[in-house]
Amino acid sequence: MQRILITETAKYVGKRVKVAGWVNSRRDHGGIVFLDLRDRSGLLQVVATPDLVKDVKEEYVLEIEGEAQQRPIKMVNPELATGQVELKADKIEILAKAETPSIDLKDLKVSLPVLLDYRPLTLRNKKIRAIFQIEEEAISQFRESLKNLGFTEFQAPVIVPTVTEGGAELFPVKYYEYDAYLAQSPQLYKQILVGVFERVFTITKVFRAEPSVTTRHLSEYLSLDAEMGFIDSWQDLMDTCERVIKEIFSDIENKCQKELKMFGVSIPKINQKIPRLKLREAQEIIFQRTKRDNRKENDLEPEDEKEICEYAKEKYGSELIFITHFPTKKRPFYTFPDPENPDYTLSFDLLCRGLEIVTGGQRIHDYETLLKNIKKWQLKPADFKFYLQAFKYGMPPEGGFAIGAERLVKQILNLENVREASLFPRDTIRIDQRLIAFKTKRKKSKK
Amino acid sequence: MQRILITETAKYVGKRVKVAGWVNSRRDHGGIVFLDLRDRSGLLQVVATPDLVKDVKEEYVLEIEGEAQQRPIKMVNPELATGQVELKADKIEILAKAETPSIDLKDLKVSLPVLLDYRPLTLRNKKIRAIFQIEEEAISQFRESLKNLGFTEFQAPVIVPTVTEGGAELFPVKYYEYDAYLAQSPQLYKQILVGVFERVFTITKVFRAEPSVTTRHLSEYLSLDAEMGFIDSWQDLMDTCERVIKEIFSDIENKCQKELKMFGVSIPKINQKIPRLKLREAQEIIFQRTKRDNRKENDLEPEDEKEICEYAKEKYGSELIFITHFPTKKRPFYTFPDPENPDYTLSFDLLCRGLEIVTGGQRIHDYETLLKNIKKWQLKPADFKFYLQAFKYGMPPEGGFAIGAERLVKQILNLENVREASLFPRDTIRIDQRLIAFKTKRKKSKK
Repeated sequence: MQRILITETAKYVGKRVKVAGWVNSRRDHGGIVFLDLRDRSGLLQVVATPDLVKDVKEEYVLEIEGEAQQRPIKMVNPELATGQVELKADKIEILAKAETPSIDLKDLKVSLPVLLDYRPLTLRNKKIRAIFQIEEEAISQFRESLKNLGFTEFQAPVIVPTVTEGGAELFPVKYYEYDAYLAQSPQLYKQILVGVFERVFTITKVFRAEPSVTTRHLSEYLSLDAEMGFIDSWQDLMDTCERVIKEIFSDIENKCQKELKMFGVSIPKINQKIPRLKLREAQEIIFQRTKRDNRKENDLEPEDEKEICEYAKEKYGSELIFITHFPTKKRPFYTFPDPENPDYTLSFDLLCRGLEIVTGGQRIHDYETLLKNIKKWQLKPADFKFYLQAFKYGMPPEGGFAIGAERLVKQILNLENVREASLFPRDTIRIDQRLIAFKTKRKKSKK
Repeated sequence: MQRILITETAKYVGKRVKVAGWVNSRRDHGGIVFLDLRDRSGLLQVVATPDLVKDVKEEYVLEIEGEAQQRPIKMVNPELATGQVELKADKIEILAKAETPSIDLKDLKVSLPVLLDYRPLTLRNKKIRAIFQIEEEAISQFRESLKNLGFTEFQAPVIVPTVTEGGAELFPVKYYEYDAYLAQSPQLYKQILVGVFERVFTITKVFRAEPSVTTRHLSEYLSLDAEMGFIDSWQDLMDTCERVIKEIFSDIENKCQKELKMFGVSIPKINQKIPRLKLREAQEIIFQRTKRDNRKENDLEPEDEKEICEYAKEKYGSELIFITHFPTKKRPFYTFPDPENPDYTLSFDLLCRGLEIVTGGQRIHDYETLLKNIKKWQLKPADFKFYLQAFKYGMPPEGGFAIGAERLVKQILNLENVREASLFPRDTIRIDQRLIAFKTKRKKSKK
């Protein structure tokens, strides 16, 4: 007999079916036992005699045969897609036993460390699972939006040969008898490929050896990276970014109502167009509103990001805002300076509900200028010989942007910590298990 | 004026248009100059007066305005999608100059090392670009096929905490003050997620510190990994794998005729069903055919893989064959032993045109058995505490498979070396540039 999915049972009322899944809960009522069975499609109430389910506990994996029946009217559960049916079990096979979890998976109330210590288990909670369904939907729409705009997807490398954008946050890799690093971003590769495909994107892991523990940083995160050539102006980049973000939001709004509802949130509001402010203008506004004087800083502090988002919401009805024109000395060597004032760059960040979720900008496409800048940034041209070929042999005006996938989901769902939006988050103290548990600590092994 | 793509020019005959791209070639005919302009959509013949294109050389990036015209009948180029039109240029802007390549990009005849040394440039060749269009098509169809079968996509981690499947081929990472490694496979994570989503897949980079230089190994490659729970038998895994491979082939056959033609190949033939042979049966057949006696080996040698594919082609008209039942001691600790003979496993490789492109099998899903095996394989249960949760709390019978993306493309296009199918291949001597060029060699820096 072929197994059917739980959500299909409603179509089989009065018929014999086979289902399989995990025991989500067990309720004993004297001569009768109710099980909620969970599979990838949903939950189903199973009715069984005590002898049939004698040893069965929560999280046991079962295969159950029986008749799908209409529930009595007063027993209908309107909260469930299968709330009108139940399965009268007559044959149960235990596919796997399970230790009874000490955590209540149906009503998960645990601290973040416990949530992550028991990740393989806590991911079985419906609401936690929903985070990653939304994440995959966002990634999928990012891909579709860019393909529709003529972008080519590529696979960016993880192992890179040199320090490119400053060495502080790099993870070194022992690469045979050489030193190599984990990619901080696919930046140089996506630029190279603009010289080949004009418009490219990649969905790739990037790595930052971020020593400070914050609610917004991960050591390994997913970057949704796009780059496009033949731009008329750097505004094209923000326009494309805005379009993609809007399409992701609208896709999630259309397809993930149930999931959004679990978190009691709606997708971030944009009133027509995302407002665009220069960094210095933003800082002036923040100063006027709070008397906090960060007007000479080269970036926005976390509290400034929150404040300027408040402003954008009040003034423009938008929960997103572009901040532009970051100082040249604060950005990487390839960033295009503003011709009107070369102390500032044609770069932007996109803030959403108080947090930066995108960074982007126009790049220098002229070979000689780029070479000069590499030297000015005290980097070695020899290390960039491969990358520079793309510019030596003709590169159109170009630029791009990168969306942090986990941050995007964090902001959509109003999660407290970006770790909640990473399936298996890595940080200074954790790779799956807490690192202290391992005997491989560098100091101890004297490496 | 809005730029149009080159392939769109045919729709604008008699009208003024603007196009942009790279100069693919330049031909001077006295009072007239012909340029072939290349953009992401194709090639276009541009006619210009010498003064208009005075300084223009190959690979220059241009923006050109002019009238789209029908070519005289005898000038029509049936090889080009735009072969019936040409652009009579009257305004040309140089967007970027270019050094003239010493390599002929139109007729690329270079050795593999040169091809890779100049990757940013050689990728501009039409045929080289086609390899990666086919690769993205294969990846895209892998995703679509599995989504249609109810699989959930996830993002696998790259940084992993422990040696899982033997330490020899691992790349160590300095992870803050700890030792960590680059993932050899997403195996443990996809199994964990079967406990959550039942059916999962991931498209992820994996890393093997393979010291030998061969035409089939890369240090960093793309793994198309799938895993599914609630299987009735391990044959389900081969059936799913076969279905996905067939759909990838048929998708490429439908969408990439032009690209296949460039390589003079057709997609690998399967006559109805891919044949399935046990390793020992295959070795016996090879012995009978060649008198080469590898009947006691635990795996097939490269020459054996070629021979058994020859056999499958002759006997079954299939360029693919499954080899099953590899010895237990040769496979990882989680592989499911054959109940009929536990010295062999319910595992398989899929060979295509003489090369292994897939590996897979059923996994042990019983917690106690798995724990026992970890000890038997002389691994530390403490290192697997996180992973083992998935089994401790109930795991259905499950298994999966992994396709090597670059190998798949290599075999479809009959490429000589797997490096040709990797955009930026990494091996013992190369990360973009040849490693010897860097001052970071471990021995020299005495790290």
